[in-house]
Amino acid sequence: MLVIGRKAGENMEFSEKNKGFFINDYSEGAHPEILKRLSETNFQPEEGYGEDVFTKQAKEEIKRLLGKNHHSQVHLVSGGTQANLTTLGIMLKPYESVIAPATAHIAVHETGAIEATGHKINTVPTEDGKITPAQILDVLEEHEDEHMVLPRVIYISNTTEVGSCYTKKELQELRALADEQGLKIYLDGARIGSALMTKSNDLTLEDLAELTDAFYIGGTKNGALLGEAIVLNNRELQENFRFAIKQRGGLMAKGRVLGLQFAALFEGDLFFQLATHANEMADILREGIHSEGYKFLVETESNQLFPILPEPLIEELEKKYVFYRWKKIDNHHTALRLVTSWATEKEKVEAFLRDLKA
Amino acid sequence: MLVIGRKAGENMEFSEKNKGFFINDYSEGAHPEILKRLSETNFQPEEGYGEDVFTKQAKEEIKRLLGKNHHSQVHLVSGGTQANLTTLGIMLKPYESVIAPATAHIAVHETGAIEATGHKINTVPTEDGKITPAQILDVLEEHEDEHMVLPRVIYISNTTEVGSCYTKKELQELRALADEQGLKIYLDGARIGSALMTKSNDLTLEDLAELTDAFYIGGTKNGALLGEAIVLNNRELQENFRFAIKQRGGLMAKGRVLGLQFAALFEGDLFFQLATHANEMADILREGIHSEGYKFLVETESNQLFPILPEPLIEELEKKYVFYRWKKIDNHHTALRLVTSWATEKEKVEAFLRDLKA
Amino acid sequence: MLVIGRKAGENMEFSEKNKGFFINDYSEGAHPEILKRLSETNFQPEEGYGEDVFTKQAKEEIKRLLGKNHHSQVHLVSGGTQANLTTLGIMLKPYESVIAPATAHIAVHETGAIEATGHKINTVPTEDGKITPAQILDVLEEHEDEHMVLPRVIYISNTTEVGSCYTKKELQELRALADEQGLKIYLDGARIGSALMTKSNDLTLEDLAELTDAFYIGGTKNGALLGEAIVLNNRELQENFRFAIKQRGGLMAKGRVLGLQFAALFEGDLFFQLATHANEMADILREGIHSEGYKFLVETESNQLFPILPEPLIEELEKKYVFYRWKKIDNHHTALRLVTSWATEKEKVEAFLRDLKA
Amino acid sequence: MLVIGRKAGENMEFSEKNKGFFINDYSEGAHPEILKRLSETNFQPEEGYGEDVFTKQAKEEIKRLLGKNHHSQVHLVSGGTQANLTTLGIMLKPYESVIAPATAHIAVHETGAIEATGHKINTVPTEDGKITPAQILDVLEEHEDEHMVLPRVIYISNTTEVGSCYTKKELQELRALADEQGLKIYLDGARIGSALMTKSNDLTLEDLAELTDAFYIGGTKNGALLGEAIVLNNRELQENFRFAIKQRGGLMAKGRVLGLQFAALFEGDLFFQLATHANEMADILREGIHSEGYKFLVETESNQLFPILPEPLIEELEKKYVFYRWKKIDNHHTALRLVTSWATEKEKVEAFLRDLKA
Repeated sequence: MLVIGRKAGENMEFSEKNKGFFINDYSEGAHPEILKRLSETNFQPEEGYGEDVFTKQAKEEIKRLLGKNHHSQVHLVSGGTQANLTTLGIMLKPYESVIAPATAHIAVHETGAIEATGHKINTVPTEDGKITPAQILDVLEEHEDEHMVLPRVIYISNTTEVGSCYTKKELQELRALADEQGLKIYLDGARIGSALMTKSNDLTLEDLAELTDAFYIGGTKNGALLGEAIVLNNRELQENFRFAIKQRGGLMAKGRVLGLQFAALFEGDLFFQLATHANEMADILREGIHSEGYKFLVETESNQLFPILPEPLIEELEKKYVFYRWKKIDNHHTALRLVTSWATEKEKVEAFLRDLKA
Repeated sequence: MLVIGRKAGENMEFSEKNKGFFINDYSEGAHPEILKRLSETNFQPEEGYGEDVFTKQAKEEIKRLLGKNHHSQVHLVSGGTQANLTTLGIMLKPYESVIAPATAHIAVHETGAIEATGHKINTVPTEDGKITPAQILDVLEEHEDEHMVLPRVIYISNTTEVGSCYTKKELQELRALADEQGLKIYLDGARIGSALMTKSNDLTLEDLAELTDAFYIGGTKNGALLGEAIVLNNRELQENFRFAIKQRGGLMAKGRVLGLQFAALFEGDLFFQLATHANEMADILREGIHSEGYKFLVETESNQLFPILPEPLIEELEKKYVFYRWKKIDNHHTALRLVTSWATEKEKVEAFLRDLKA
Repeated sequence: MLVIGRKAGENMEFSEKNKGFFINDYSEGAHPEILKRLSETNFQPEEGYGEDVFTKQAKEEIKRLLGKNHHSQVHLVSGGTQANLTTLGIMLKPYESVIAPATAHIAVHETGAIEATGHKINTVPTEDGKITPAQILDVLEEHEDEHMVLPRVIYISNTTEVGSCYTKKELQELRALADEQGLKIYLDGARIGSALMTKSNDLTLEDLAELTDAFYIGGTKNGALLGEAIVLNNRELQENFRFAIKQRGGLMAKGRVLGLQFAALFEGDLFFQLATHANEMADILREGIHSEGYKFLVETESNQLFPILPEPLIEELEKKYVFYRWKKIDNHHTALRLVTSWATEKEKVEAFLRDLKA
Repeated sequence: MLVIGRKAGENMEFSEKNKGFFINDYSEGAHPEILKRLSETNFQPEEGYGEDVFTKQAKEEIKRLLGKNHHSQVHLVSGGTQANLTTLGIMLKPYESVIAPATAHIAVHETGAIEATGHKINTVPTEDGKITPAQILDVLEEHEDEHMVLPRVIYISNTTEVGSCYTKKELQELRALADEQGLKIYLDGARIGSALMTKSNDLTLEDLAELTDAFYIGGTKNGALLGEAIVLNNRELQENFRFAIKQRGGLMAKGRVLGLQFAALFEGDLFFQLATHANEMADILREGIHSEGYKFLVETESNQLFPILPEPLIEELEKKYVFYRWKKIDNHHTALRLVTSWATEKEKVEAFLRDLKA
């Protein structure tokens, strides 16, 4: 799916700093509680490489939410691509491949990071960013002998790259298929916060620990400066995982920076509060756009919206707001991508809707 | 594209040995001239690793056919996947990718060999196994920044995996696009012999040296015991290429075995004679099947045919002939793949046609 | 070289928090100026992935110090192993190798990260952590043909892993050899701050830009929360380097976190002040230990010291200070590694010396 | 260890063809029995990719010699580097390494093929080409945590690269250590024929199947045109191994060529006869050189000898014989490498000795 208009590499004018930002969920720094803790603990000497007390606490806080999956391991790394390539690199033998929707972040937006670890990605077409058991079965059937890769892992993301979410039932069906076919499931949770806080969500972190072999909890897009928490549920993947993190360049000397942030996010329910705020801001936008009669490219409940708007209106909005033009629909209409975050101000959302109606 | 029916891994009954073989072009050993030379030169001591006199001769014979492209280099390796992964591995920087038709051998039937060298393959849909400049432009346009791989090589095969061939004009158009866009072209010539000997072919080895950055001449499927000759036309690719061959396990200690075979094939026109025979046998089959009113899945002129036949007839033919069921068309029809070779006997072809009409 | 005693993975007792820390230079958080700026700019929305204003400023500040090397590129990544594997991965063709001292971080302490990108490291023995032109010539001479890797990059670190430093003359001699032999030079500057601030140092960042093909400036071990600044001086390495960073998982969504830190360190001379402090603390320790008549395993001027102390004294010191036992010398003596940092308090240093004498 | 004098890449003069060849054991073609069978079976159509009847027979013949190790798997590939990189690539997880003597073929003469699959080789110094349990324990002890690779496989060769051989006791001790430490053993048997036929050898193929996790039986250097037989004894390594062969480019379309050769070598005792002949020729040379009072660089019983001869004599011998100058001993003496093979003629051996005495 082609992002048109502003490219990631283009730079904002200084004047844009005062605009309303709906371009992504990583435009600002961190939630103030995180900065406060960084300052408070700054001179407390700690072991390096994730052996600090904050990381230990963070792991415990997260494990608490995994319920009966006491054996799960938690590891903190600096970014999502890092999490994906390190974990998938361990889940696969050299000739094994990962099945993913065509929109998957690993398939499109990680510059071939998975292939750089030696593995093919078998993509299947998708409209809503999700993959179905039937599609997976098709891939398995096509791969019939040693002249082809051996698909062994199902990659899913929640929310998906187009903002949609899996239901518990969908995930259970994938799990059943995986068990039947000897596959593993890996869930990319860069935006798992938003997914878990959507109105119709019926999944919990405990469910994810139950239903996937591994997943990660995204911090960067939900209030942290950086950091993702990899959760390994399948015991096979756990042994020596820190070796894999180190080898791929993901073992931070000051692991305390990661630990402290996840401790802050999961000590109470800050992580969920932040995601809830992002979703609420998206809900207001969604409802407002909908009530003006506009359609959406994909129906979502999460912090990403894809409204289809007429060109002249888009041009007006661009004067005051920053967002991606996602996909050209016809000569007069384009689907935008609007993203809200923990830092999105309600006034900006309301102003956007006013300008939409104007 | 799914091969149904007999899988590569299934074994033939002993009784099948007397059947007519249309299953592939590597069922027999080598052309007798090759075996003769192996015997004649057997006790002549030679340098190892491709420094023998036979290899030197083979390289000269092939370079003679490249016309004015005197600077091209020739290297002999043991197999096609070896040729592909070694050459493409040198053509690409770590974050660069290769664009290929969805049916490409490297994309489907090499167990992720290219990804194992670290590179993504960007596939485009194809009916006839070929790729067009417009499709390549689409891929380039979609790849807009550093979050995605950088497509840098166009992979084509001639004949393609479904038996079709490129015309000189098509190849020139790809070259023009490649030059304009800073891409390289790699041609997989596992069946280049058959391609060059089809009736409407207007390409020569000299053209290939001119229009591609690298290609290989397939020996295994045209009368050799084993061996493919890589031709490097782009000077950038030539430096230290033997290091790449050695690293990937393709530098045979007794390189003489490869050299002697290619010397035999290219000293005169044996290579082209063998391909011509294969094509002629295919032509007879094609014409015979056509005259019975059957259609083909793809129109080809090369040594691969894909006739669509009714089930009861297929079952009858299977009693006396060995071939792949390629693709189920409907409940009553299946497209077969029939392959002829340098070793295909005319009597078997004629018998097949008789049985088709029976 | 074997680190005995406390392993990185062992955890400190809570009581140790009040001890004097000489175990490494990444035990604390960041310099307060960095935390201050993080807070001040927290809600200023910025482009992601290193396109923010802070990163732009950081790059300019660093380039200013590179003098006439205006063409050099600066890129910020999260850690040292990340910097090494990304840059070396771009500097080498598949069959090329890197020559390094046997103590090199990439050779010993990065869990095979360079090999994981496909490249061999040719190590040479070293006492002081440095490599000489003569040793490099030996390696080149041994590598005579395509059955062996082709050494193409010289890896050095400054300070080295044992705290020693290169002089300008030594670096010029390596450069001369590299130019003569067609090699590139990569300098790992995890502790370049300390190296440049030693008393007898005669190198500048401008010299490094002149004398190396690429190097990195370490932030993590000199006052940053995380972050290293890769400087690419050789134009060949510059094209599309951001693709390489992204592919290896080093392109942070909130690149602002890296940018802001390096802007803070290099806007004025904070980076050099912090390194100077670390070195001064080390000088006091060194002088105090020396004046007690103890020897050192390696003579250093940087923030790492390797005093050889008697066992009973070490056991006493361990009650109040945290440090590595680096190498057993004999049954009664062990060489310690003491490391100072920007955060080392003078009182702790003085207390250590008092306890040493007691 | 540096090979001086003739490099592999240098070419022999035509006049050299009449010289006595002691330069290696792959200068000639194949044993005539192999060529005979190639001719006899040439037109018998067979399945491709190692599913032919000859390969099936070859596997059975080899398995017969593995005694009670009925579960071992046999796979045929085209060359030694291919065998090594394919098998070791399967034996190791991404962050795991292989321990090998410094002279190991994989460490020195495979152009970084193992590193190209992502794995570090930990080398230990050796005089005789062998590795001891004590050396392995040292490597394990040095590798203490996740900042370093995890050594998991012991690589040995038999004969070694300098012609020495392991005894059964030595191999049993390595096995005991491996079992104790959770390591696997891989044996490179490029010259296993010569090793098993030395006078003091007490090992059998059955022992190798018992004492190693995997090994390969070299055909190329013992009378085949090409081909090595990988034997997988550890069940963990067996699943899907053909995928690995295909991915690395080692699955020959005309696998019959490999199958037929190993069937010929192992149907009776041809393999052992050929190795015995090579060893006998070496014995005559060794005894003759010894009786003239010359010393050897390494004491060997196999088909490789390393006599230390005076310069003027070497120059005389070079006029009539082809061999490597292996290592300069002093200004007046050099150690040669003389290699005999299945094809070495006794007259040439006797002539060499006469010329030595002249």
